[in-house]
This record gives sequence, C-alpha cells and structure tokens, in this order.
Amino acid sequence: MFKEKVKDKNTKARTGIFSTRKGDLLTPAFFPVATQGTVKGLTSRQLSETGAQGFLANAYHLFLRPGIEVIRKMGGLHQFMGVDKPILTDSGGYQIFSLARLRKVEDRGVEFRSHLDGDKIFLTPEDVIDIQIGLDSDIFVPLDECIKNPVDHKKAAEATERTISWAKRTKDYFRQKDGLKSLLFGIIQGSTYKDLRKKCLEEILQLGVDGLCIGGLSVGEEPDLRYNTLSYFTDIADSSYLRYFMGYGKPEDIVEAVSLGVDLFDCVVPTRYARTGTAFTSQGEVVIRNSPYISDSAPIDSECSCYSCRKYSRAYIRHLINTGEMLGIQLLSYHNVFWYINLMKNIRKAIEDNNFLKFKKDFLENYKKNKSMS
Amino acid sequence: MFKEKVKDKNTKARTGIFSTRKGDLLTPAFFPVATQGTVKGLTSRQLSETGAQGFLANAYHLFLRPGIEVIRKMGGLHQFMGVDKPILTDSGGYQIFSLARLRKVEDRGVEFRSHLDGDKIFLTPEDVIDIQIGLDSDIFVPLDECIKNPVDHKKAAEATERTISWAKRTKDYFRQKDGLKSLLFGIIQGSTYKDLRKKCLEEILQLGVDGLCIGGLSVGEEPDLRYNTLSYFTDIADSSYLRYFMGYGKPEDIVEAVSLGVDLFDCVVPTRYARTGTAFTSQGEVVIRNSPYISDSAPIDSECSCYSCRKYSRAYIRHLINTGEMLGIQLLSYHNVFWYINLMKNIRKAIEDNNFLKFKKDFLENYKKNKSMS
Repeated sequence: MFKEKVKDKNTKARTGIFSTRKGDLLTPAFFPVATQGTVKGLTSRQLSETGAQGFLANAYHLFLRPGIEVIRKMGGLHQFMGVDKPILTDSGGYQIFSLARLRKVEDRGVEFRSHLDGDKIFLTPEDVIDIQIGLDSDIFVPLDECIKNPVDHKKAAEATERTISWAKRTKDYFRQKDGLKSLLFGIIQGSTYKDLRKKCLEEILQLGVDGLCIGGLSVGEEPDLRYNTLSYFTDIADSSYLRYFMGYGKPEDIVEAVSLGVDLFDCVVPTRYARTGTAFTSQGEVVIRNSPYISDSAPIDSECSCYSCRKYSRAYIRHLINTGEMLGIQLLSYHNVFWYINLMKNIRKAIEDNNFLKFKKDFLENYKKNKSMS
Repeated sequence: MFKEKVKDKNTKARTGIFSTRKGDLLTPAFFPVATQGTVKGLTSRQLSETGAQGFLANAYHLFLRPGIEVIRKMGGLHQFMGVDKPILTDSGGYQIFSLARLRKVEDRGVEFRSHLDGDKIFLTPEDVIDIQIGLDSDIFVPLDECIKNPVDHKKAAEATERTISWAKRTKDYFRQKDGLKSLLFGIIQGSTYKDLRKKCLEEILQLGVDGLCIGGLSVGEEPDLRYNTLSYFTDIADSSYLRYFMGYGKPEDIVEAVSLGVDLFDCVVPTRYARTGTAFTSQGEVVIRNSPYISDSAPIDSECSCYSCRKYSRAYIRHLINTGEMLGIQLLSYHNVFWYINLMKNIRKAIEDNNFLKFKKDFLENYKKNKSMS
C-alpha cells in the first residue's frame, strides 16, 4: 500500500505514495473533513479545485443522519456526495466518546445515546465495519476506546487492551467480507505511555493492517509530551506503513509532525476557522472580520492562487462576514482548504529537494509574523 | 436604450434588447438580487453560470454596510463583487419605507433611523444619486415615496406628486454630473388609481428617462386589481421604453406579467426560498426538506441542466438542508436562480416562436402539478 519515496536527511520527514482503489495519494497529505457528507461550504467541484487528494467522513454522523441505508441506496458515499476521491471513514469512536451521552463501554461494544435525539444505540466493532461497508468507504478504521488526558497507567492499559481486542475482531470480520477492495487501518492507542504504545503497535502489526492511525494524541496533553510520544512512535513503527495522525492539526503543528515522520493528517480547522472569519496565510492567521481590513484591496493571502484570492479582496470578504453573508464563509473555507493542501505540496517539494529543515524554519518564521504585528 | 424586437400577436408579451455600458440585455429578463453585494450563496463565477444577465443591488443596505466610501475606494461595486454584468441599483426608498424606523418624509427628502443601529439619517434625492455614483451602478433609480395598500386617493396623490417632484430634482442633478455613462430610470407610482398612474407616467416621460419602473404594485393589493393596474399602465406606456416591475415575483406571476407587457423583473424569491429548503421546478415548488425525498435519487428538476441538478440527488440536498449544512442552501440557491433565468429564456423563445400563449398555458398547467400531487 505505502511506499516511502524520499527520506529527509536532517529530520524524520519523508515523502511517499499510498495506493488506494481510487488512486494514489502523495504523502505527506492532508484530508479535509466532510463531517456530515460535505466539506462544509464546498461543492464537489470546489473541493476538487482545492487539490485535496481525499477526505475524511464521519461514520457516527452519517449513521445518525441520513442513515447508512439511505447512502447505500444512493450508491455509496462517493456517489451521494458527487466525488471520486479516496474516502477515509473514521469508526465513530471519537464522536461516541466526545459527543454522545451516557456511554457504557463493555467488551462486546459500546452503548451510547445519540447526541441528537437521545436514542439508545449499541455498536460492536463488527457493526462499525458494516457501517463503513454501507458507506462504501475506501479506507476503514476500526472501533477503538478513546481516552482523555490525563489518565493513569492502569486505565490507559485497560483501554489499550480493549482497542487491541476490538482490532482483532475487526480484522477477522473484515477478512470474512469477500471481495472488499477497501483498506483497513489499525489504531495505535496507549496515551502517553511508551510501553502501551509499543505493545499496541506490535499487536496491531501482527494482525496485518494497511496503515497505522495514531489515536489518543492531541487530547489535552502538553505539546512536549505529545511530540515526545509521537517521536517515540515513529521511531519504533515499521517505515513501510503509512502513519496517520488523526484529527490533527494547525499549520505549525503539521509542519512539526511531518518532521517527526507523520504521513497523513485530517482536521476540521480549515473550515471551522473559516466560519469564525479567520484565514490561514503565509504570514499566519488573519482575522478577516477585524476593522483593519475594511478597505484592504489585497487578497486574503497575496502568495495564494486560489479562486477566493484571485477574485476577491479582504475588504469584500470582511464585508460578507460582517453582514452575515454565507458567501464570506464559503470563500474563506475554499481558501483555507486550498491553502492547507498547498502547504502539503510545499512540504513534499521541500522534502524531495532535500530542503525541509530550511523550509520548516522559514515557514514558522513567516507564519509568526502576523502574530508579532498584531 | 430599448428596442422592441418581437411582439406577440395574442398577448402584450414582447421581446426586446436593452443596451447598457456593460452590454445588451435580452428581455424579458430577470435580475437576481444582491441585497448586500452578493446574490446570497453564489460566487461570481456561479452567478455567471446561471446565465443571469445582470442583477439588482440595494443602495440602502450597501450605504449602511460597508458604506459607499469603502466601495468607491475598492473601484466600485463591479470590482468589489468581482462581476462584470450590468448592475441596477435601487434608490433605497423601498427599504427606507419598509425596514427603517421613525421615518419623516418632507419635500426636501426623508429622515429615518437605520434598522441596524438606530442612527438618524437624512437622504435627499440628490444624495441617492451620489450613492449610486459611488457604487458605480449601470442603471440608477430615483428616490420615490413608497406607499402601502390600501391607501386613499388623496394620500396616494400626495405621494405621487412628491415622487414626481423628486424625479425632477433627480434628473436635474443626474444631468449635472458630467460624463456619466450610466442610465437613469423613472419610477411610476400612483397606487391602483389610474388617473395618478397616467399623470405620473406623463410627467416622468417629459423629464426624459431611460426606462420605466413600475413601483407600488404587489404591496398587498388583490391580484385582479394588480393586473388591472399593470395592464392599464402597459396600455398607455410608450412601447419604446423598457418596463421594469420592481421586486416581482413568483414564476407564475412573472409569466402573467410578461403577457401584460413587462420586460424586466427582480426578486429575492429564488434565494430566499432556497434558504427555507424550497426548489422551483417545472412541476412547481418542491419542499426538498420533506421526508418523501429522503431516498430520492432524482435531481431537483429532471428538466434542469444546472450544476446542482447534473451533480446531486434530491436525497443528498435534503440531507444537507436537514442537517443544517450550508451547502444545501448553496446548491438550492444556484438551482433556483439558474431555473428562473432559464424560465426567462424559454419565455423569450416562446414569444419569438409566436407560441407564447400555448407556452403560458402549458407552463402553468405543469407548474401546478406538484401542488395537486401533494
């Protein structure tokens, strides 16, 4: 599935190719998030124009609305959404453990109440595979037990054990489903405990998976501890597996994580920040709704070539955001996703030009400019 | 400015060409409304794809936010919005008389309080021209006194006199502004009183204007009275002037008004209905959020060739509307505007094929189907 292409000499950054039935991904890559079957505010044509190589959809949300049966009838999620790129679906685990109410975790699966209407739902690891089959996802993720930080070693060990045992059942069930051309990732949990991370990794690799998800990081721990745990993981992980940091991150976080050997990211930040009127630029975050931009004829980011930047001024987008016009959010969402995808292109180029360390330094320096100006 | 092309033999419908500095309009035409400098939910590229030949922008809203000075600095409204089509601006009169608070009308102008922050504002007919110059509009509309229905003859006569006197000052002021290549319309008021309509028309034509706006209709009167007044107006109006029915209407209304000789329309209905989850189709209005469409793989309107209909199912758009995803509103807005513009194309074709009466009958029959089905 994954083939390492170029390895940076100074850091653990690398480029690679990851093959799916919907085509190859160049890594490091960023997947925007289509929480409810849409990357918020973007048509499928616009999503394609951003250069996104694929995206993440949330099994939990789609399971609740419109329901898996509807999407299956419509020919699967690609057809439902009108997109032809690789779709990675999460297991819903993260949402069950963060959004849903009255969870009860047992070995057989997890019981919870829908955050929408309070309906009681019980899902097993096998159900979660059936959901992803119904969606016709390209990359499946198994159900895991997500734990918060801080957590003591004993509780973390129990949750890790359950994640491993669910992964085994997931793999068995996945194998039984004949003719699946989709891929199955494994999730590595273990909080910030190295022994648990190591054990989880070894067990998951033994099962045979198509890629490794890094779960349970960026859940409240200090950045130093996060990067320490991450670096430990990429040291011990077999380099022939793609490494996917789930739900991560801000631009500066991504550059840092790439330098520690991460290949794939997904995050709601580009579209979520757009909805609050914030743009990502080469000079850092720009809160476009602020008054300094009222008569600013410059584009959001003068170094960006996206439609929003080619066509519109900061003044116009500020006006739209300020008057509650949804077009403002649309244009910012488009820009932010495009900008993230372009950042990944620049990262890949820097690695392949053997220039990543300088790229990282320059990027972070520029990226902080706006902060020091304001 | 206006040239009648083909006159229908059975009705008062006609096609024509109206020339502006931004190009020719084929009439009958429909202008979508860019209330605050955007046709809600559409990028300028999407607006162009709908086939819209031009649009209306609201002077009142843009005067309040972002302010005319900002738009002037940005190079005018075309550049601000990133569009190159003819822009018709209203005078703000309708908004002052419907949205603003504590109005005081006097001969010199009108005093009101902003509906946003209560600021006291005084605008003269001359100010309203300056505002439209600041916006760099292609077609100007003078300040008029808008009255509700019902209104007695005396009050209607007073308001009509004031509208005429303001039109004279408007024309004088407009003439003084050297080098304006924009056009100036006149507004015909007079409520449902034929003598007032006639007097207003004669006075306005004497001033010399580039087109005739029909104001003060569709403000609460019975449809019969509306069409009677409208028909009287188009009987007495010189056929060499374009006739613009301000703020009108639903599809069935437009077809009716075209048959009475109207050339130009504007209305917020296509985008406003989109925001409530309603689509216009050849079979009538479809409330796409309703449950019958949950697994409906058909497009919004199988006879429509817009992007939303080529790419997405009713089931998908229903899901988006139902989960509060703005993409649902975007796709419906795109479709509704496209559909309206296409309706106008079909109307023009029917007139030029000398087939308008049959077209009207068939259209209205089909358009009621959905109603009788539900």
